[in-house]
Formats: sequence, C-alpha cells, structure tokens
Amino acid sequence: MAANDQLLQPGERLDDLLTHQLYIIQSPEVFSFSLDAVLLARFAGVPPRGRILDLCAGNGVIPMLLTTRTDATIDAVEIQPRLADMAERSVKLNGLSGKIRVVEADLREWKPEDGLYDAVTVNPPYLPLGSGERKENIHQAMARHEIGCTLEDVVAACARNVKAGGRVSMVHRPSRTADLIDLMRRYRIEPKRIRFVHPRRESEANMILIEGTLGGKPEARLLPPLIVYEEDGEYTPELLAVFYGQAAELPGFVRPNGRAPVAGARSGEKEGKT
Amino acid sequence: MAANDQLLQPGERLDDLLTHQLYIIQSPEVFSFSLDAVLLARFAGVPPRGRILDLCAGNGVIPMLLTTRTDATIDAVEIQPRLADMAERSVKLNGLSGKIRVVEADLREWKPEDGLYDAVTVNPPYLPLGSGERKENIHQAMARHEIGCTLEDVVAACARNVKAGGRVSMVHRPSRTADLIDLMRRYRIEPKRIRFVHPRRESEANMILIEGTLGGKPEARLLPPLIVYEEDGEYTPELLAVFYGQAAELPGFVRPNGRAPVAGARSGEKEGKT
Repeated sequence: MAANDQLLQPGERLDDLLTHQLYIIQSPEVFSFSLDAVLLARFAGVPPRGRILDLCAGNGVIPMLLTTRTDATIDAVEIQPRLADMAERSVKLNGLSGKIRVVEADLREWKPEDGLYDAVTVNPPYLPLGSGERKENIHQAMARHEIGCTLEDVVAACARNVKAGGRVSMVHRPSRTADLIDLMRRYRIEPKRIRFVHPRRESEANMILIEGTLGGKPEARLLPPLIVYEEDGEYTPELLAVFYGQAAELPGFVRPNGRAPVAGARSGEKEGKT
Repeated sequence: MAANDQLLQPGERLDDLLTHQLYIIQSPEVFSFSLDAVLLARFAGVPPRGRILDLCAGNGVIPMLLTTRTDATIDAVEIQPRLADMAERSVKLNGLSGKIRVVEADLREWKPEDGLYDAVTVNPPYLPLGSGERKENIHQAMARHEIGCTLEDVVAACARNVKAGGRVSMVHRPSRTADLIDLMRRYRIEPKRIRFVHPRRESEANMILIEGTLGGKPEARLLPPLIVYEEDGEYTPELLAVFYGQAAELPGFVRPNGRAPVAGARSGEKEGKT
C-alpha cells in the first residue's frame, strides 16, 4: 500500500469497497459514501456494454461498483472540484481509467458529446433547501441539500441525457416518493421498478430505489422490501450479498469476463456464509 | 339464524366477518369481498365521529367493518342495484341502519346533500378496460374492470366529496402506483401514508394501501411492509390481528363505547392466540 499512500491528501483515507478488490478514497470531512450508494449500484438496471452516466457522482463510488456489473464505459459527473479530484484518484488507483471518465461539471449544463447514454444513475442530495440542519461544511452541505440543483434539475438532466427506452435509476428518501414519481412522469421517465428499503421488517422505509424507462409504458413492479437488519440486529443475508457484490439475481447483472472474482481474506470469509 | 335466512336470495350465503359479531351477505356469482377490502377498512384513517363516504361499496364490507372503528355515519355508494340491495340487507341484518346508509348511485354524479365528508374510502375496480380476461358476468366484471368509472373518475369523486384536510384512502394494484400518485396530486389529494402488501417477505407487492389529505403538504410516510404469510405458510401475527379487528395501533383507531367486544366461538378462539 506504500505506493497508494501518495494518492491520499491530508484527512483522506483508503476504504475497502468489499468487492472485486476495489478501494476508494474517502474523507469524513469532505465525503464518504453511504449504504444508499451501494444499494443503488446493485439495484440499477445497466446494459452489459454501451455508455452509462452517473450524476452527482461524489467520490465515484457508484461508477466504481458498476464496473463489477457491466463492461459499459461510465461518465461520472460531479460539480465539486474537491470530490471530482478524489474520484479521479480513486479511478486511477483501481486501474479503471479505461472504463470511468470523471468530469467536473454542473449537471444542469452537462450534454453528452458522443450521443445519448444507455442508462443513467443518480444519488442526488435529499433535502430541499431550508429543510434539516445545516451544520456541515460546504462539501457535505452540497451533497445533502439541494444547493447546486433541485430534484427537478436532476430528473430533467436524466431525461435529457438518456436514450429512448434507456433506464434511469435513483435513490431517495421515501418522503419524496410522490415528488419523484410526479417529476419522472413529467419528464417522460415512466417508473417501472420500485423497491423500498426498511431498516427492520417492522420499520417504516428510509430509502426508495426507483428505476424508470424513458418513454416506457405505465406499469410498475413493486419489488420485495429490502430489509437491512434481522430482528437480532445482524445484517440480513440479502444485505450481505449486496455488500459483497453477489446480488446476482438483480436484473441487468453481468459479471464481466475480464474481472477476477472477489478475493481478499475479509470479503472471502463473508462470501462463504451467504 | 332462521329469521336471517329470509334475507338471503338464491345463491347467496351469510359469511362471518370474524369481528364484532358482524355477518355479511355474499354470493360467489355476484360479489364476495376479498382481503383488499378488509385491509383498507383497517388502514384507512377515519375520524371518531362525523361523516364518511365509501365509494364502490359493493356488498358493504368496508362500511360495516368501519363501524367497529368509528361512531361516524357512513354513506355507502354503489352503482349496481343488485349489490346495493345485498349491502342494504346486510346492514339491516346487523342492526346498522342507524350508522350506514346504502345509496344506489353513480359515483360520477354523487354529491353529498349534507355538506362534505370527513373521510372517503374506496376499493375501486383495478383493471383498465381491455386488460385482463373478462369471463365473468356483468356484476363481477364491473367490480374488476373500469367499466362504470375510470381511476380518474374515482379520484375526482373523492376530491369533490371530501373536506379540506379530510382523508382519502384507497387500495389498488401496485402496478398502478404511478397513476394513483399522479391522479391524487392532480386533484390536490397529497399522498401522506403508503403501505405495500406482500404475500411473503420475498414477494413483490400485490396491493398498495394509500391515504392522502385534501390540500395536505407534500411528505409521505412509507409504512412497514404488510406481510401476509410467514415462510411456513401461516398467516403473520399482524394479519391475524387485522382479520380479528385488533390492529389497534393503526392511526385513527377508535373502539366505540356502544359496541360489545368480539364474542362468538370462532373469533373468540382466534383472538386468544393473537
């Protein structure tokens, strides 16, 4: 790891993505990915090849995880220079420069140079301006609050960048379910697959995963609830499978030939159990 | 039961509603209620008193179950004379004529005579015209298909009949989730509580329960999944509680003073278990 250490700036650390020997640069003060991003990266319908766009890419966690499911190339668009730089260094560190292109850009202005994308993923800021506390620094605030873009900006950018029939996948708070569905339809992205994430079987949902198709026919599937913890406080088998990259039943799952299966003591151990 | 038998027409039978000694007239050829109606009657937010409207009332199962949760009076609107007649006889049989008024009317034309309602419930036909098989007779077909009214007619009737701030509760198929939310918002009914029903924990949902408030602020709660069967095929404790009228944790639940608690061997037995 000595060589990798040079890639880190003060306050940053290198975290294990627990699958396919991927590592990611994070910083508690600037940006760390959360479960939401991991779940979206497993949930999203992605083509086996072609071109994918990830908006609000942050430190690049979703594009990096997507490379374990598809041979498509991925454009990762992030407005914050500090985060785009972290993502860029993580991509290099993992030898993924040929698959992921990190772009520092405002999603409201982003236009694809090489034609529309086959699929779009996005884990946008959740909180409308003025709601919730805002103690964080500007990096955290922009990732959490609709400062740089509203939900409508996000949905409009998805619709503008995806091919007809292409898939758009998002993760958000369930309290925004009606807003999401309303906006997706307004921009002709028909909701097709919806999954709610509940911390426990008896809990209200704290996340919605939603996938729509540009110009699709109305008719959504409401997938089984994704339960995070068993009653005894352990992760559910499904969640462990998601963490360790084995949620092979998810539509669109592809294990590219060029990538080795998971190795490393930590993830290998857990894989045996699930 | 000898006296009650006179109330039955050929092909009809008297079924136990399993709670509060309520019985209901049903007919396999004409109309039998299903789990959907029972779940909606437990899910719906209802005021402790005031006036409630039930649309697409069928044989009156929802109004009858609602009387166990509220002292409000209930107008049950049903377009089919045959079903309205069954509902009327069931209401009399249970001595509920003072609480439930059965009205044979088209919901598209129904207007309240005594001012707007405090709450509206509806278990509408699920299938758009032209979808699904149509082998049934006209009674069954009208209950299943949007023959007498479209989903938009239903939502419009709810919005037209309910007070500002009043609740509208519906049950539908999850495939229509986007249509439902879209139409509710168009008629200013803001979705506030949503619950999906899954036959098993690992199954896709086959029902959505949704409640909105006329003129409410946007922000929905996504309730815990309602699982019908355990892995061993037995009903879940929550479902048994719903059947036997004990889902007291549901918002708006009121056990009116005037009604005796559940009695009768069959339901008494089961209640002891839950």
